[in-house]
Amino acid sequence: MSGTAQEIDLHGLLEPVGQVESYLKDFIDQRPLPGNLRAAIHYGALGGGKRLRPLLVLRCCQAVGADMKAALAPAAAIELVHCFSLVHDDLPAMDDDDLRRGRPTLHRHTNEAMAILAGDAMSSLAFELIVTRIADPVLACSLVRELSIATNDMIAGQVYDTLPDFAPGTSDMTKLTTIHHHKTGALLRCSCRMGALVGKASPDRLAAMTAYGKAVGLMFQVVDDLLDVTQTTEHLGKTAKKDEAQGKMTYPSVMGVDKTRAEVARLHAEALAALEPLGAPAQPLRDLCHYMATRSR
Amino acid sequence: MSGTAQEIDLHGLLEPVGQVESYLKDFIDQRPLPGNLRAAIHYGALGGGKRLRPLLVLRCCQAVGADMKAALAPAAAIELVHCFSLVHDDLPAMDDDDLRRGRPTLHRHTNEAMAILAGDAMSSLAFELIVTRIADPVLACSLVRELSIATNDMIAGQVYDTLPDFAPGTSDMTKLTTIHHHKTGALLRCSCRMGALVGKASPDRLAAMTAYGKAVGLMFQVVDDLLDVTQTTEHLGKTAKKDEAQGKMTYPSVMGVDKTRAEVARLHAEALAALEPLGAPAQPLRDLCHYMATRSR
Repeated sequence: MSGTAQEIDLHGLLEPVGQVESYLKDFIDQRPLPGNLRAAIHYGALGGGKRLRPLLVLRCCQAVGADMKAALAPAAAIELVHCFSLVHDDLPAMDDDDLRRGRPTLHRHTNEAMAILAGDAMSSLAFELIVTRIADPVLACSLVRELSIATNDMIAGQVYDTLPDFAPGTSDMTKLTTIHHHKTGALLRCSCRMGALVGKASPDRLAAMTAYGKAVGLMFQVVDDLLDVTQTTEHLGKTAKKDEAQGKMTYPSVMGVDKTRAEVARLHAEALAALEPLGAPAQPLRDLCHYMATRSR
Repeated sequence: MSGTAQEIDLHGLLEPVGQVESYLKDFIDQRPLPGNLRAAIHYGALGGGKRLRPLLVLRCCQAVGADMKAALAPAAAIELVHCFSLVHDDLPAMDDDDLRRGRPTLHRHTNEAMAILAGDAMSSLAFELIVTRIADPVLACSLVRELSIATNDMIAGQVYDTLPDFAPGTSDMTKLTTIHHHKTGALLRCSCRMGALVGKASPDRLAAMTAYGKAVGLMFQVVDDLLDVTQTTEHLGKTAKKDEAQGKMTYPSVMGVDKTRAEVARLHAEALAALEPLGAPAQPLRDLCHYMATRSR
């Protein structure tokens, strides 16, 4: 592992987030929509958040030598998918959560029907965004393929998560890895792959971005499991200790906190190794990986 | 208007439905999915229904002179979108319906969380189906564009429907047409356009299919409004008299039953007029229009 939080130019690293926010807002605002639906989508999709997925799309595009601006469409699209999944996950019939990003969840802010419909719209708007904003049909098709498969893998992960006896006879660790690989990993891997594809990466570089995405995708969720145990609700901006309260399998519950920290370090190293052939243009991805490993919310 | 129910070869007209069902089942079964999610998608997407949207896709493809088989992918995709919308519409926070196609709704058959997730998956599977099954990227992009825009228009229609004061100062009839044009019309128009696109229709023929789709799309919903008033729950396979019980604006409530019947005849004639340039290959579309105008469930 290299670098500390102090050494990283965090401001510079996260700077493109503003462009994604404007791009996404512009797309939502230029599309004819009922006013209350537009307001709900604004609330669900533009309400802050870490924007890690869009950042991965942009920084992976940059790492393979292309202009980040080319990646704004898939960056905005994957954030729509991520935000739709949060809106639906928070519903009373799912996680029944009142708090998200430090404010009321969308169904608390509006109502359940609107949260269901706004989530549905955010999902299909993601695909509309790609095919209306990407002029090259071959590229647009690749991106729709990546994003639709990842979305469905994410949903499969949600289902695995609510039915942890899905593979009788396998170890808790195998099950947990399967859940995380789908539920969180799918979109994070997809972000990296879409960034590489829109940057016209060679097969080798696409493979490197995929390996990086796989490592940081799992690492992100392992860190999330740790934070749920070690942080407060006020600090996280969402309900803490929820995994434990719901009796969910997590890395700390299966292997203990110390081994979980070691697993974060192992995945961190794996992500950095994948970036080795890419040299200097991949520095923001190294910084982003460090940021994801050491984040406290 | 020409033709009566007796004159139409209904069996022949509806015959391709079986191919759509097999195609859709094959797609769902070859995709890796958790077993309970696959079962829920089977229940929601393969459980009968009229299959009007897939039939329109296939028969419009045929009407512009192409082989119906070319249209199986968009036919199956639009049925996935339609079925996802039914699954979510039936949820307790939405229409709260217990009965669909003569059997328990998906959330009654399984649970609310599964109905939300299965609906979400059916939506994004529709896009995955198109880009993985249509080899020509230009065509695949056009289809994703048509389907994503129609899906979002349909969702907008759902929102208009639950907020009928969306356009203060306009007449009930204007509002009602806006709701129906989006809520039901969008997918039916899209079916016709996707059939024409996959059949490589000339701009003139695409315009004819669009005009036909617009007329039958509105007519379908006007007939639906009539059936809600005139039929029983047992006959419909879904709850009857629900529009009235929910105080919803419908054609019969705004213009009375007689004028509503006249509107059906007017739209029927409009649909047939759009087909005039297409000659004999459009005969199944004439029959389908007649079937839609005179259906009793």
